[in-house]
Amino acid sequence: MFKKISHVAIAVKNLEDAIERFSKLSGLKEYHIETVEEQKVRVAVFKIGDSRIELTEPTSVDSPVAKFIERRGEGIHHIAFEVDDIEGQIARISEDGFQLVDVVPRLGANNCLIAFVHPKSFNGVLVELTQELKRDEPEA
Amino acid sequence: MFKKISHVAIAVKNLEDAIERFSKLSGLKEYHIETVEEQKVRVAVFKIGDSRIELTEPTSVDSPVAKFIERRGEGIHHIAFEVDDIEGQIARISEDGFQLVDVVPRLGANNCLIAFVHPKSFNGVLVELTQELKRDEPEA
Repeated sequence: MFKKISHVAIAVKNLEDAIERFSKLSGLKEYHIETVEEQKVRVAVFKIGDSRIELTEPTSVDSPVAKFIERRGEGIHHIAFEVDDIEGQIARISEDGFQLVDVVPRLGANNCLIAFVHPKSFNGVLVELTQELKRDEPEA
Repeated sequence: MFKKISHVAIAVKNLEDAIERFSKLSGLKEYHIETVEEQKVRVAVFKIGDSRIELTEPTSVDSPVAKFIERRGEGIHHIAFEVDDIEGQIARISEDGFQLVDVVPRLGANNCLIAFVHPKSFNGVLVELTQELKRDEPEA
């Protein structure tokens, strides 16, 4: 079962501009920046309530986020839900006929295992499942 | 300051189909349906963590959500952030040069005062500010 909204990711062209704008809009000043090599993105992470806003800038023209911006412009890229047992959830969802981008979870930002569900499966919304790894767990 | 993600609203063509799909995907079974006459929408509200997912179906072709679907297809329509003092936040944001759709808060679903910030002001993202009314407060 989905436990909470882990984060909402927003595709932006220029991370520094977006950080300034979102800080001003939200009044939130604290954030950290991560680079996710595999996705070819830099991400500014703002904690808010028990969720996060992740401003996501492509670092290469062949990043999935660069392609998204080219096709649709800047905007909300995906919504991520926290789960306890990502492999069990993937199995459950697959059996129910949802199309997964990742049938095997992979390592994402924030020391999490992640898997994407295809937007065709849920009304045009790209959904990420995410499970936080405990510090003493192996990374996959 | 923004306190938490109040909800993420998803524009859908058929509410019953979307409810079935999201229930299956998320494993969440509990929801309620509201009609927001002013926005010409029916909304299925799923609580998750300290936020909500709101599946939003237009009830008329001239609903803003119908126009969104016509232009961009189904998908994430807006993200709403909870604030304590919506009028103060509107004043603060306006002074900082953000373009507001609503300069005066209006009544939304869930007994809340709401105001939208124009997506041009924040990287293509439609942002809603929302303040929950206490039971004994007047409605605006």
